[in-house]
Amino acid sequence: MSQALRELRELLGPEGWVEPADQEPYLKEWRGRYRGRAAAVVRPVDTAMTAAVVRHCRASDLAIVPQSGNTGLCGGAAPDGSGSQVLLSLDRLNKIREIDPDNQTITAEAGCTLAAVQRAAAAVGRYFPLDLAAADRTMIGGALATNAGGVNVLHYGNARALALGIEVVLADGRIWNGLRGLRKDNSGYDLRNLFIGSEGTLGIITAGVLRLFTQPAQTVSAVCGLPRLERAPSLLAALQEGVGERLVGCELMSRFSVETALSLPGCEEPLAHSHPWYLLIRVTDVADATPLGERLARVLQRLDMIAEARVASHTQAAALWRLRKAIPAGQASAGASIKHDISVPISRIPAFVTAVHDAVERAVPGTRPCIFGHLGDGNLHVNLSQPPAMAAEAFTAETTRLNRIVHDLTAACAGSIAAEHGIGQLKRAALREYGDPVGLDLMRRIKTALDPDGLLNPGKVL
Amino acid sequence: MSQALRELRELLGPEGWVEPADQEPYLKEWRGRYRGRAAAVVRPVDTAMTAAVVRHCRASDLAIVPQSGNTGLCGGAAPDGSGSQVLLSLDRLNKIREIDPDNQTITAEAGCTLAAVQRAAAAVGRYFPLDLAAADRTMIGGALATNAGGVNVLHYGNARALALGIEVVLADGRIWNGLRGLRKDNSGYDLRNLFIGSEGTLGIITAGVLRLFTQPAQTVSAVCGLPRLERAPSLLAALQEGVGERLVGCELMSRFSVETALSLPGCEEPLAHSHPWYLLIRVTDVADATPLGERLARVLQRLDMIAEARVASHTQAAALWRLRKAIPAGQASAGASIKHDISVPISRIPAFVTAVHDAVERAVPGTRPCIFGHLGDGNLHVNLSQPPAMAAEAFTAETTRLNRIVHDLTAACAGSIAAEHGIGQLKRAALREYGDPVGLDLMRRIKTALDPDGLLNPGKVL
Repeated sequence: MSQALRELRELLGPEGWVEPADQEPYLKEWRGRYRGRAAAVVRPVDTAMTAAVVRHCRASDLAIVPQSGNTGLCGGAAPDGSGSQVLLSLDRLNKIREIDPDNQTITAEAGCTLAAVQRAAAAVGRYFPLDLAAADRTMIGGALATNAGGVNVLHYGNARALALGIEVVLADGRIWNGLRGLRKDNSGYDLRNLFIGSEGTLGIITAGVLRLFTQPAQTVSAVCGLPRLERAPSLLAALQEGVGERLVGCELMSRFSVETALSLPGCEEPLAHSHPWYLLIRVTDVADATPLGERLARVLQRLDMIAEARVASHTQAAALWRLRKAIPAGQASAGASIKHDISVPISRIPAFVTAVHDAVERAVPGTRPCIFGHLGDGNLHVNLSQPPAMAAEAFTAETTRLNRIVHDLTAACAGSIAAEHGIGQLKRAALREYGDPVGLDLMRRIKTALDPDGLLNPGKVL
Repeated sequence: MSQALRELRELLGPEGWVEPADQEPYLKEWRGRYRGRAAAVVRPVDTAMTAAVVRHCRASDLAIVPQSGNTGLCGGAAPDGSGSQVLLSLDRLNKIREIDPDNQTITAEAGCTLAAVQRAAAAVGRYFPLDLAAADRTMIGGALATNAGGVNVLHYGNARALALGIEVVLADGRIWNGLRGLRKDNSGYDLRNLFIGSEGTLGIITAGVLRLFTQPAQTVSAVCGLPRLERAPSLLAALQEGVGERLVGCELMSRFSVETALSLPGCEEPLAHSHPWYLLIRVTDVADATPLGERLARVLQRLDMIAEARVASHTQAAALWRLRKAIPAGQASAGASIKHDISVPISRIPAFVTAVHDAVERAVPGTRPCIFGHLGDGNLHVNLSQPPAMAAEAFTAETTRLNRIVHDLTAACAGSIAAEHGIGQLKRAALREYGDPVGLDLMRRIKTALDPDGLLNPGKVL
């Protein structure tokens, strides 16, 4: 062990130093797609110690890979294979520093899980809306570093919209205290949003002041079968005209995506008949004389672009959302798949989906697009399942070609090739290819201004 | 005229070149507090010409002051007194480039007024919520450059929350096309929010893709009299629990601020009795079987912290909002005033207001705090009216001392000394004094990275 690493171990103490035998969970991405090596895995206990680690690494010319939750999908929190980088886990920074029910804010450290923040908010009668499938493992630091999305973005916005302030350890080891709990603050440049979503390449987010909301007193779900996709964007607008801001979720599922989920235990047909497309809707409201289910049923009856609809009971609603969440796992039953996380303007979704179907069929006949996602955000998961008769290896050999097809069509619709999962390592080359050159130049200038030595998370994003 | 200016005139053509006799409206801030001189006043007709102007100015070492609307309150759009700067007005970039009702977006150029965008949205059945007293003169470019707030921030957010994408002319004359209409896009750093709110010091915003919403079908206002301020923050939370996301406005007015407005024609007592504090509430909803007014009345009846409340008819609502908007003008009738635009966490408003009252009374006995603002955003206008018996000049001589008192108390409450009006020239020294030194250093680095020659709006913000 080098002198620099011995000093680092000294600085962190035994609790902050992860011995090689225990490093595996930090070095391996949870799906196993990214696995690196590290010179050290360290777990500072607070912001001051995090800053001390950064200062030490800077003096010793050690690159740092920040990690908070390790639930990302693009390899943003995985070290490279050189064994020269220091993996800095924020999982011991797990304190709720403050809850202010009247300001409707909570100040949580990077290592708090989403579930822990949700529980702390609920304990004072408030609601924290950031929610993902992995809410019990996803941590605030990672959610902010990647500007996480999830199932409530349509109404509450993504992580960026929920963070009023953040605390950041900079590349030179200084601490920027931007922990303000203000809804209006025009005193200078928006540093907060620069760090949020920068995937640990500009600074290490150690805590955030997060917005809380009133607890919804009523929650009702419904499922609609659509004969065709063409009118889905105007259906969304019509739903918003009917129920207003009560609409908090609007998920789109193709018949094929539903079928993959139906292969799993606990999943059942959402409606009596089969439909090419499904919308899964969630509405919430405060306590009210008008039961929300009746209101939603009235609105759905009026909309002629729906072939069949059902407002769900409490039990039925759980089954519907189980079905939705089962799609990624269910897709495994359909063989090899090539996945994309893209967004396009909502109005262009129907034409985009048609173009994807046509182009992948031409490229690899028999490919089954498994398309689902967040209609209200324009964010679709365009996953492609292999043709049934094809060998899995032969299909995955087409990855580059099929990626190009989906990304070219996304770009042609003025969309984003990285909607909610970020860039990490996975889409770094694609960002160089599809990103606006002027924008990329600005990003590089900012990176150089804030991390001139390239110490923070090298090989990610840029 | 120098060779560089002659070439600039050539580049712009007669329509884009403002002769000295016509320059006055561009050189003078509307309240007359800032008045500068300019080497030239130019009005490019589109983004390409704006970029050409910037390239020419850069080559000729001419500083640029961008201006869009000229309705700011902090001198951010006024040239200095040297007569060496080029004032670049964006008022000819006034095209609505695109409306996409199904994507719920509008693409508007910098010179479009808020009112024009509101009208264009309404024409396709949509709603653009950014609204200020000067909506018919405020332009999109200025609103984005200053991250404008207004009366709907509580529910819809400020200008930043309403802009999905922007187009920017950079300091080197390149154009960054960030005009995306996406609700989810995690493909790299958040450049958009860096330019928004930077007051023209990092780039010139030439167009924006703005979010539209469903038109509210019902709008109801109410006024409440509060015996004391202590419970106002929990009253806000209780209102949100009662009416949910329908609450779009929640304005606080002190009795003295109401009295100043009552001195103006067309303003009348809001309630039968006089109260130390008033809340002016606005709720909106889609069409509904339950009339919104009845619902609001039921909620208000339950809340024991309200001494007297009245749900307003349509006519009464107009009178209430006229009263609210009359406060700044009404204050003139109370003699000289010293104004502050601050924000603090909502929960700390009562203690902050008490501290301000005590401190200004100690400093200048008889000073009458005229406090009003946006309770839901924590944004208060802390205006101080002179003691009735004091000479106006003697009171304004206390400006520095009273500014310090209000700003020190704001800082002690973890607040912002520049909530919605920005920094401009007015608060540049205060930002240096009250801003976090690490944050200020980051801002300077970013300024240097994006505008190394200091060409854009020198002497503003930093």
